[in-house]
Amino acid sequence: MAGPLSLEAIADLVGGRLVGEGALIIDGVAPVDEAEPSRIGFLAARRYVKYAADSQAGAFLVSTELETALPDAASRVVVEDAYPALRALLEHFHPEPGWHPTIHPTAVLGREVELGAGVDVGPYAVLESGVRVGDGCRIGAHCVIGQGTTIGARTRLHPHVVTYHDTVIGADVVVHSGTRLGADGFGYTFMDGRHAKIPQVGRCVIEDGVEIGANAAIDRGSLGDTRVGTGTKIDNLVHLAHNVRIGAMSLVAAMVGVAGSTRIGKGVWLGGQAGVRNQVEIGDGARVAVQAGVTRDVPAGETVSGFPARPHREALVKEANVGRIPRLLERIRRLEADVKRLGEEG
Amino acid sequence: MAGPLSLEAIADLVGGRLVGEGALIIDGVAPVDEAEPSRIGFLAARRYVKYAADSQAGAFLVSTELETALPDAASRVVVEDAYPALRALLEHFHPEPGWHPTIHPTAVLGREVELGAGVDVGPYAVLESGVRVGDGCRIGAHCVIGQGTTIGARTRLHPHVVTYHDTVIGADVVVHSGTRLGADGFGYTFMDGRHAKIPQVGRCVIEDGVEIGANAAIDRGSLGDTRVGTGTKIDNLVHLAHNVRIGAMSLVAAMVGVAGSTRIGKGVWLGGQAGVRNQVEIGDGARVAVQAGVTRDVPAGETVSGFPARPHREALVKEANVGRIPRLLERIRRLEADVKRLGEEG
Amino acid sequence: MAGPLSLEAIADLVGGRLVGEGALIIDGVAPVDEAEPSRIGFLAARRYVKYAADSQAGAFLVSTELETALPDAASRVVVEDAYPALRALLEHFHPEPGWHPTIHPTAVLGREVELGAGVDVGPYAVLESGVRVGDGCRIGAHCVIGQGTTIGARTRLHPHVVTYHDTVIGADVVVHSGTRLGADGFGYTFMDGRHAKIPQVGRCVIEDGVEIGANAAIDRGSLGDTRVGTGTKIDNLVHLAHNVRIGAMSLVAAMVGVAGSTRIGKGVWLGGQAGVRNQVEIGDGARVAVQAGVTRDVPAGETVSGFPARPHREALVKEANVGRIPRLLERIRRLEADVKRLGEEG
Repeated sequence: MAGPLSLEAIADLVGGRLVGEGALIIDGVAPVDEAEPSRIGFLAARRYVKYAADSQAGAFLVSTELETALPDAASRVVVEDAYPALRALLEHFHPEPGWHPTIHPTAVLGREVELGAGVDVGPYAVLESGVRVGDGCRIGAHCVIGQGTTIGARTRLHPHVVTYHDTVIGADVVVHSGTRLGADGFGYTFMDGRHAKIPQVGRCVIEDGVEIGANAAIDRGSLGDTRVGTGTKIDNLVHLAHNVRIGAMSLVAAMVGVAGSTRIGKGVWLGGQAGVRNQVEIGDGARVAVQAGVTRDVPAGETVSGFPARPHREALVKEANVGRIPRLLERIRRLEADVKRLGEEG
Repeated sequence: MAGPLSLEAIADLVGGRLVGEGALIIDGVAPVDEAEPSRIGFLAARRYVKYAADSQAGAFLVSTELETALPDAASRVVVEDAYPALRALLEHFHPEPGWHPTIHPTAVLGREVELGAGVDVGPYAVLESGVRVGDGCRIGAHCVIGQGTTIGARTRLHPHVVTYHDTVIGADVVVHSGTRLGADGFGYTFMDGRHAKIPQVGRCVIEDGVEIGANAAIDRGSLGDTRVGTGTKIDNLVHLAHNVRIGAMSLVAAMVGVAGSTRIGKGVWLGGQAGVRNQVEIGDGARVAVQAGVTRDVPAGETVSGFPARPHREALVKEANVGRIPRLLERIRRLEADVKRLGEEG
Repeated sequence: MAGPLSLEAIADLVGGRLVGEGALIIDGVAPVDEAEPSRIGFLAARRYVKYAADSQAGAFLVSTELETALPDAASRVVVEDAYPALRALLEHFHPEPGWHPTIHPTAVLGREVELGAGVDVGPYAVLESGVRVGDGCRIGAHCVIGQGTTIGARTRLHPHVVTYHDTVIGADVVVHSGTRLGADGFGYTFMDGRHAKIPQVGRCVIEDGVEIGANAAIDRGSLGDTRVGTGTKIDNLVHLAHNVRIGAMSLVAAMVGVAGSTRIGKGVWLGGQAGVRNQVEIGDGARVAVQAGVTRDVPAGETVSGFPARPHREALVKEANVGRIPRLLERIRRLEADVKRLGEEG
């Protein structure tokens, strides 16, 4: 399955239009500026067009939009949308390596741990009492799975993931290395001259098909649960505080922080390093620009940017207005001169 | 102790005013919008008032301020300050589970490690030589405690905490999973064409009663120590650089970054994703807004926001001024027309 | 080598000018405000001048620029550049402790692991199949080194570092605790109503002499590699996305985030919490201010700040312009009064 393909077979595989030498044999995909002659160069962003002329690639996988950027003679497969095509090719050339499910002899399993069929548990993993793991899961080396945690089928935890007690993880979830699920929320009340901790008794619930990057931290709920919806993808070093709820199919870029009890809809996009304060609501399909700081509700479908985050078109207007100040100053100077002259003439 | 309580007993426990059915039996606390009839719904934020009318909660724990938002017939316990009351109820319904102190047989203890009475050490924890652990501490699975580290009584390190050599942790401290204490500061000097590392020989000192969230990083001092004061609480993914000093009872929200040698007073609040540059001083009781970037000293009691951070009232004035630009433009246009007319008339 | 030194010997060691009592015996370096009489106080920042008069330090290591801030009678060693001198002194007083290379019996070594001479592997470290480790490396406790990873000579991985498969780490690299190298990039394409994962098949390559702080995350490439250049230093909690390339001798401060495929030159400085969007290019020697958000290319040597990041001098001009608004308003009011008067007089 992972062997070389003719360019014609590639066109078939990705449903693309073949131009040029269909018999050419291709053994992998590469960026246009790094491709060797046996590779198909991937060109889907205008920024990389400049590398096309000097590319050593034997052929190109190119989006319709960028086809004309290629040398006329270049053999190519042209597709409407380049990324699904790339995905299909990569799945061919880099099939997931097989694995033989093993419970490593150093794994520590607590009382009443239930493991489904075909579960793999890595060296030094610790599964505390009452943990249940679905069929076909892989628990990486050094993971510590807290008491009563449940994990759905085919989920993969990379090495060094920690879940606190009673965390709920769905099926087909991927959690990358160093991510912590279900730690206590940041909840205190000031009494007797100190910040007294409010017990954090909710859970952290990760629904099916979610992927979470490395070194993220998603806290358990204080009262009630923290919840990440089906199919939502979260990048590295993200912080979701207690009782945050994110709907399905949202995208949360790296280093985003969401404060307590905030509710985020479905299909929302949060740009890198964006922040959202506590107890706000972000509607379905909203987009929050990179580094934006959301301090109040965002309606469904709105795009916001800046701090405090406002509709992006307002930010552009504001920016333009500030840019007008030097010209305003000049007009005022002229007016002052005119008025002075008029006064003297009068 | 964790059993159901009558509403009357709840009013007694939290020192609140009982309205309605005192004999009602309650078995837990829940958010108003998720509460079942056997639960007392917690209502302390105006934002959740909208869920009160349809709530299934058998009764409510409500702040004086929001009492009128409840249906007239709702049984309730009314308190001035809802969070201490919530804390008391949660401590009743969710008592800390007991634990039997054990040194897990897989723990690796170096030479001259001293463990106090009733210490629990989890699977695969590594305590290097000379580590001293106070009475009643819990060292989680996979923690690596560097040479010469000392830990005060009743401190809890959750799984996967790492301390570098000679770290000092006080009593009653909680450190969440994945936090690193005492790593080298970011100290280099450019010589011979490269960034040469300056040895980082100070310590990382965490005083009594501090809590630190997950995946934080608090570096050791370069010369002298990095120090977090008594009772200060720090959220997830916070970075404190070498030689930072924070006073007692401060609150540091998630993803805050503080650069080298900065000194922060007592009772300071740093909002989420705020940053503070190196070598500045922030006075007691100051407040730094979320995402603010502090580049110069902040006096005691001041509230600052924005980048570069300025007193918040100045930011509001500036914002208002920018908002005036379109109106200024209009007034200038009218003036120009008037002056033109006057010139023609004259 | 670590013993006390006379002040004269210190002057010799750092190539400085001796003023005062050369026979004074010094046993360590300390900050001016914490130094005891047997210590040399380090004074290199104007901010600490205020502590000089009351310092208990027996003598001072001071930069030429700040010499006059010292009491006249203070014994001192004066140097042009204080940090290389500090480095030399610290290397004398705090020599790197020796270590006896050991493969801890709990380390798990996969098939065909190759270890060079004098390699140290800590407790519970896991080296998967095909890992190659160069001479004199130290692999900390609990590290998990993914299949096929190669590590150059004298590199040190602190406890709890994870590398994914096929990561490449050069010689003389230092990686601090909790850092993850080579996790999957955040690459999806929306198809069939969900975010479908694009296989991430590139590598994460860390060149010689790099140092990376704690809890950072540097993803593998999607197509092609992510690469950090020789001698570049990276602080805590930094995120580098798939296919980011950073040149040699750059400095990346804490909490910086760089999105996918961005290319950063040599000798670049990225300030704390700065962000860079995907697919931009930052030229050699550029400087990105703390918290700046880079959204388009930055030319070599430029300094940018703010969001969206612009040349810093433009930001200053803009700031000054906004500051002029109240004065503009006043001038408009006067003009309006004048014009009204002129109209009435006319």
